[in-house]
Amino acid sequence: MEGLKECSLTTTKDVSLQELKLRLRDFARVRGWEQFHSPRNLLLALVGEVGELSEIFQWKGEVARGLPNWSEDDKEHLEDEVSDVLLYLIQLADVCGLDLGKAALTKINKNGQKYPITHQNI
Amino acid sequence: MEGLKECSLTTTKDVSLQELKLRLRDFARVRGWEQFHSPRNLLLALVGEVGELSEIFQWKGEVARGLPNWSEDDKEHLEDEVSDVLLYLIQLADVCGLDLGKAALTKINKNGQKYPITHQNI
Amino acid sequence: MEGLKECSLTTTKDVSLQELKLRLRDFARVRGWEQFHSPRNLLLALVGEVGELSEIFQWKGEVARGLPNWSEDDKEHLEDEVSDVLLYLIQLADVCGLDLGKAALTKINKNGQKYPITHQNI
Amino acid sequence: MEGLKECSLTTTKDVSLQELKLRLRDFARVRGWEQFHSPRNLLLALVGEVGELSEIFQWKGEVARGLPNWSEDDKEHLEDEVSDVLLYLIQLADVCGLDLGKAALTKINKNGQKYPITHQNI
Repeated sequence: MEGLKECSLTTTKDVSLQELKLRLRDFARVRGWEQFHSPRNLLLALVGEVGELSEIFQWKGEVARGLPNWSEDDKEHLEDEVSDVLLYLIQLADVCGLDLGKAALTKINKNGQKYPITHQNI
Repeated sequence: MEGLKECSLTTTKDVSLQELKLRLRDFARVRGWEQFHSPRNLLLALVGEVGELSEIFQWKGEVARGLPNWSEDDKEHLEDEVSDVLLYLIQLADVCGLDLGKAALTKINKNGQKYPITHQNI
Repeated sequence: MEGLKECSLTTTKDVSLQELKLRLRDFARVRGWEQFHSPRNLLLALVGEVGELSEIFQWKGEVARGLPNWSEDDKEHLEDEVSDVLLYLIQLADVCGLDLGKAALTKINKNGQKYPITHQNI
Repeated sequence: MEGLKECSLTTTKDVSLQELKLRLRDFARVRGWEQFHSPRNLLLALVGEVGELSEIFQWKGEVARGLPNWSEDDKEHLEDEVSDVLLYLIQLADVCGLDLGKAALTKINKNGQKYPITHQNI
């Protein structure tokens, strides 16, 4: 976790949900924002960010994987909005007392049982 | 639920965004689903899951932190829906070629500059 | 479906927002549901329905105007979900004390001022 | 329909979905915007507006019916966002070839059959 202190973002690092959760807790605490972080407030904030994310894509018609022809500004805007959704989701899970990482792994396993691999798939 | 043991979920572990991304890539690849995973398809799937998440909270009025009085079934349902949002968000970022973990840390830093800590906060 | 005849839906009729609002008020009243219809409950219910609407479109890639090649079942499903969004929106506006029809006309006028018609447009 | 020419919004009038649809068609046509109004573009624009609507409510905790203590500015902002959702919904239904008013009445009837009135309700 030492790397966090420097926030050296130049190389890809393996960011964990736990690390983001702790940073966000601290962020809210030092600003006195915990009082606003009820589950439904955070949920509506999440919906707000999903709206901003959708606005980026709304008039573009179909968009190809990898976003060819997008400007760097548009890509950075997208990174911001995708992140905002993630950050509120992590905070929502946190105030609900959920272990998001564990829940996500569990859900992948459930999905694997729901949609078994068939010969048609591969 | 035996499958879960393979992921050793009995103790809280520090799940990374990178790990989930790789699992989801594999999940889609072996099922032949990559063809459906365009950015806007995944975005609409994300919106769908945000809708399911909202439905859990819709008739409850204000909900306290920690979800006191929620049944275990309701909590598990919530874990499933929060996870579904996360899993589509990770896949959306992936097909857009974004580094979600790096983007999230960058956004926290930006937010820190936008909302500096003041004496009133602490 | 006999009930429909009472509403004389065989020919297209000009349904007003006022009419729908009054029907929905009555619908909630006779079922004792008014107690659940707080603004944020209805907003989250609206988000839930927007999610269901999105799910219809999520794996389809781009969809042409008029929905060529959609089955009658898919079209009916879409009619149901579009309607659900509308019905919660009308109820949300109602419990907030807004005149939705007036607000909509006002907004069209505002938009007209914000985006004036130019020679390039026509 | 004569009233429309004057746009006299001072008194409550019974605005119809048909009337709004025709105004919006005209609005898009004279600005050359029809080319952007594919079903999924309009759907994402709708999601964007639902996000803006949610942002109004996100940090407020529970909100009472009638919005007591809201400023006139906040109420006008809400009217704008509720209207934006409605206007995109009407346009989405239109490009999909749906009769929204008829669909809404049909859905109310379906809901009436799904949730019959019981003695417990009244």
